[in-house]
Amino acid sequence: MTQTLIQKILSVSAIAALTVGTVNAAEIIHDAEQGILQAQYGDKWAKQDVGVQAKLDALYKKTGKRPNIIHIMWDDNSYGEVGVKAFNKIRGFDTPNLNTMADDGITFTRMYTEPSCTPTRAAALTGRLAVRSGMYTVAFPPEGGGLPAEEVTIAEILSEAGYNTAFFAKAHQGDIEESYMHNQGFDEATFSLYNQFPPMFWHEQGEGSGLTIGYTKNGTEKKYLVDETWRPYGYVMDVTGKKGEKARETLPPSLENYRKSSIKHQELALDYIRRKANDKKPFYMAYWPNVYDLIADPKEPVTTSNGSLFAQNIERLDRYIGEIVAEVKKQGIEENTLIVAMADNGPMAEVPSAMYQNVFNGGKGSYKEGGIRVAAFAQWPGMIEKDQIVGDMITVHDLFTTFAKLGNATKHIPTDRIIDGIDQTAVFLEGDGNSRRDYYHVYTGPVHAATIKQQFKRVWLGGRPGLVKNDFYNLYLDPREMRGMMAQMLWAWGPFDMMKKRHDAMNKKYPFIPTRHGVPFEGIENLTPQTLIYQKTVRDTMNTGK
Amino acid sequence: MTQTLIQKILSVSAIAALTVGTVNAAEIIHDAEQGILQAQYGDKWAKQDVGVQAKLDALYKKTGKRPNIIHIMWDDNSYGEVGVKAFNKIRGFDTPNLNTMADDGITFTRMYTEPSCTPTRAAALTGRLAVRSGMYTVAFPPEGGGLPAEEVTIAEILSEAGYNTAFFAKAHQGDIEESYMHNQGFDEATFSLYNQFPPMFWHEQGEGSGLTIGYTKNGTEKKYLVDETWRPYGYVMDVTGKKGEKARETLPPSLENYRKSSIKHQELALDYIRRKANDKKPFYMAYWPNVYDLIADPKEPVTTSNGSLFAQNIERLDRYIGEIVAEVKKQGIEENTLIVAMADNGPMAEVPSAMYQNVFNGGKGSYKEGGIRVAAFAQWPGMIEKDQIVGDMITVHDLFTTFAKLGNATKHIPTDRIIDGIDQTAVFLEGDGNSRRDYYHVYTGPVHAATIKQQFKRVWLGGRPGLVKNDFYNLYLDPREMRGMMAQMLWAWGPFDMMKKRHDAMNKKYPFIPTRHGVPFEGIENLTPQTLIYQKTVRDTMNTGK
Repeated sequence: MTQTLIQKILSVSAIAALTVGTVNAAEIIHDAEQGILQAQYGDKWAKQDVGVQAKLDALYKKTGKRPNIIHIMWDDNSYGEVGVKAFNKIRGFDTPNLNTMADDGITFTRMYTEPSCTPTRAAALTGRLAVRSGMYTVAFPPEGGGLPAEEVTIAEILSEAGYNTAFFAKAHQGDIEESYMHNQGFDEATFSLYNQFPPMFWHEQGEGSGLTIGYTKNGTEKKYLVDETWRPYGYVMDVTGKKGEKARETLPPSLENYRKSSIKHQELALDYIRRKANDKKPFYMAYWPNVYDLIADPKEPVTTSNGSLFAQNIERLDRYIGEIVAEVKKQGIEENTLIVAMADNGPMAEVPSAMYQNVFNGGKGSYKEGGIRVAAFAQWPGMIEKDQIVGDMITVHDLFTTFAKLGNATKHIPTDRIIDGIDQTAVFLEGDGNSRRDYYHVYTGPVHAATIKQQFKRVWLGGRPGLVKNDFYNLYLDPREMRGMMAQMLWAWGPFDMMKKRHDAMNKKYPFIPTRHGVPFEGIENLTPQTLIYQKTVRDTMNTGK
Repeated sequence: MTQTLIQKILSVSAIAALTVGTVNAAEIIHDAEQGILQAQYGDKWAKQDVGVQAKLDALYKKTGKRPNIIHIMWDDNSYGEVGVKAFNKIRGFDTPNLNTMADDGITFTRMYTEPSCTPTRAAALTGRLAVRSGMYTVAFPPEGGGLPAEEVTIAEILSEAGYNTAFFAKAHQGDIEESYMHNQGFDEATFSLYNQFPPMFWHEQGEGSGLTIGYTKNGTEKKYLVDETWRPYGYVMDVTGKKGEKARETLPPSLENYRKSSIKHQELALDYIRRKANDKKPFYMAYWPNVYDLIADPKEPVTTSNGSLFAQNIERLDRYIGEIVAEVKKQGIEENTLIVAMADNGPMAEVPSAMYQNVFNGGKGSYKEGGIRVAAFAQWPGMIEKDQIVGDMITVHDLFTTFAKLGNATKHIPTDRIIDGIDQTAVFLEGDGNSRRDYYHVYTGPVHAATIKQQFKRVWLGGRPGLVKNDFYNLYLDPREMRGMMAQMLWAWGPFDMMKKRHDAMNKKYPFIPTRHGVPFEGIENLTPQTLIYQKTVRDTMNTGK
């Protein structure tokens, strides 16, 4: 370590040094840990940013606009199953388009998300740990809640910087008006309010197959059935809306309509690319496909060697992604379009025969690597080099800050709250070894479950005072987190404690927003009578002060 | 299914149809299951073999000799850790040479071995399930046993067909004279009789680190120590010999000598390539490096991100393999040399921090995929196409039959015993989808533990009569074998039972050879006094009729 660096570290308070190196970003408040890194690398990063900005500006000069950004994110997938040919073979399905994307750009080996759909999506939209916006649960109807209006999304930020913005498919950000995607900064949005389970399984066929129990009234003796409103029959599946306008329900919930909506979302995404390719403004499109369909459709026999609907779904997803990439090429905007494709969290073990825990242990909902370390790829011909494997730590929150940077929108990032996302443009443009983070505080629900620093992981959840086992992991030696260590990593006890203290101090200074509650489906023009009954029940609950 | 095929299947008895389609191979006796496949595909395979032979003959015409064959096999490795760049990153080490080999040839995703060192090596040498030659245990000194003389090895077969043959490094095929590699068909051999544990851990440093307990006399109160011969002090680590000659001990066992021997074996392998490259006879070299060194050497700091000696070893192994490939190129024999590089079984969990169970569950010693499904690569420029992922089922036994075919030596394969190995030349030369097996009977020790057919696996070990759980697995849906099925796979109960009955009937007709016992270290000229004392103890045991 140089004398200058030592001087610098000694002169800066960790929590005071919470700004990133560029002028625009000077006011952004990051988590405490980033201050420690900033003190050590601020000058180096500032220098590197000059080169990074020059690359972006050169492209801007050439194309006349900032780059288009397409963020594709799908559900519940084990790391390694897609984008790695050898592992396709092991699983008995084929993802040629994602494999090609891996060949054509970056394969991330350490992209962290939150452990489930809603939190990861909130994190991507806000650049903040989901717990900060109260978006830490996975909600089902009746929810009566969602993403608070005062959260500032990447769509809002890029809109301010002159982007067209659109959202398609699975939002899962709540059912209250302020949470709708077109009310959260997107010019246009067609999206599902909840996850796939209700339309996919909650009906007679799902009940008959044992995938849902008790939703239909078939299993209930009619003479004992008193409350007709208790089961959530009137929920809304999919809506469409434009910024500043009311929403409309597109397709009422049913298995058939769910299938239609998946196809529709893909068509909308393709159409959006065609519509905006030659627009004078660049576009940001979040396309988070529902895609899973785990009820056997007699019209579509399973053709994978795997023989499961899950594999069939993954192959359809791959085909969809291939169509998106092809459309970008066809429109000739490939060199000015960043595509990021990734899963939102680990596999959901509850669906039979569908998913398995591959190289990592733990699935959806878990703070273990299997829950939060996901398949992720990025391509951008001319800007991102081909065939890169990037081992840098990067998180879904970082996409917020990085997309803002690419869109010349960093100055619109709010400076009154903690932004967990770090600008990782250098990783995308300069490759492996350029991450600006080496830590991640992992939450499951509202609980701080674990903290990762470098290849080390300390588990807080279940940790008890004293010398107990199963608290420390070395992720290189033991990627499956099967052999908790203690004696070998006592040196890391203190440093991890300090990290938590710093993080807790920042949380105290910038408290979490409580989970937002409200009346569902307001702002939707064409509610059915069934939904109005359902809405009234929930409204009554809300009004009695939940 | 065509009428002709139906006719053919109906006309052939499974157990009678145990011959492969080529003329030379007509008399080879395979396991019963192969008869079933032969009845269905014999004609097709015979036709395909014409093309395969033409390719081999064309090369023969060009080079004037049959191809050189280099078989590299290392210990205890989780599938996926080497040869897949993304997984290198996850583990924190780098195997650039194996990754290049994967790019340059075939990556197998379903190469099966036996579950531990000795059985896998016996299987490779004999083309037979290790249980057939009594080589199913992993022996430590004092062993007094080894590979029976009447087994016919690939070295004997290729010698008869005019090959130079050599063996270097880890044989682990026993300590009796008939088992020595130069007595089992190799022209020259420098090899270790046992595995790495004795020299690596059985000494004061290993004992001080807790890796061995009680081998040195330090922990024993001297006045109570009566028997001075009980601990196996006089074993032989490494010997060298030439066909028809006596052996000599090279380096007496010690950690330092073990390290020297690893380096020496690599030098010998490289030198052999140089010596035989331009010989008029082709060569077959089995190089099965010891390579692991899990005692920290203060002279060699660990430089991998992983930080473990295991990772350091894997990187050294990779470097060694790189040197072998480079030497083959340098000698200009690349296009006439098949290199197969593979692990011998899954990871050994007992060594702390060294290995982990990656995509598959179970390690060394286990019949689960993690014990028997290994990293395996093949390269042969001009004959094997680049960048292939091969999902075909193939086993280490098949290498025997395949190497024999390549060496025009099939006619020397014995026809008085079951040969489990199948000629898989078509997979190597024609690629994915050309395997001639879809089954594998898995033994752990002398026990028939499981049977694999296609993607299905039936576990016999622990299986009880009646409808018990945990007996059937679908390896595509559940590669980690975590969710045993029964109800979903009742259709497979009968077919698996039939397989076992066929296999058992063949075993009855061709009984297993009992494990061979004898006096160790006979035929070694320069035994030390310590070894002579040790040998006497074991000889006395043998003479009292073990």
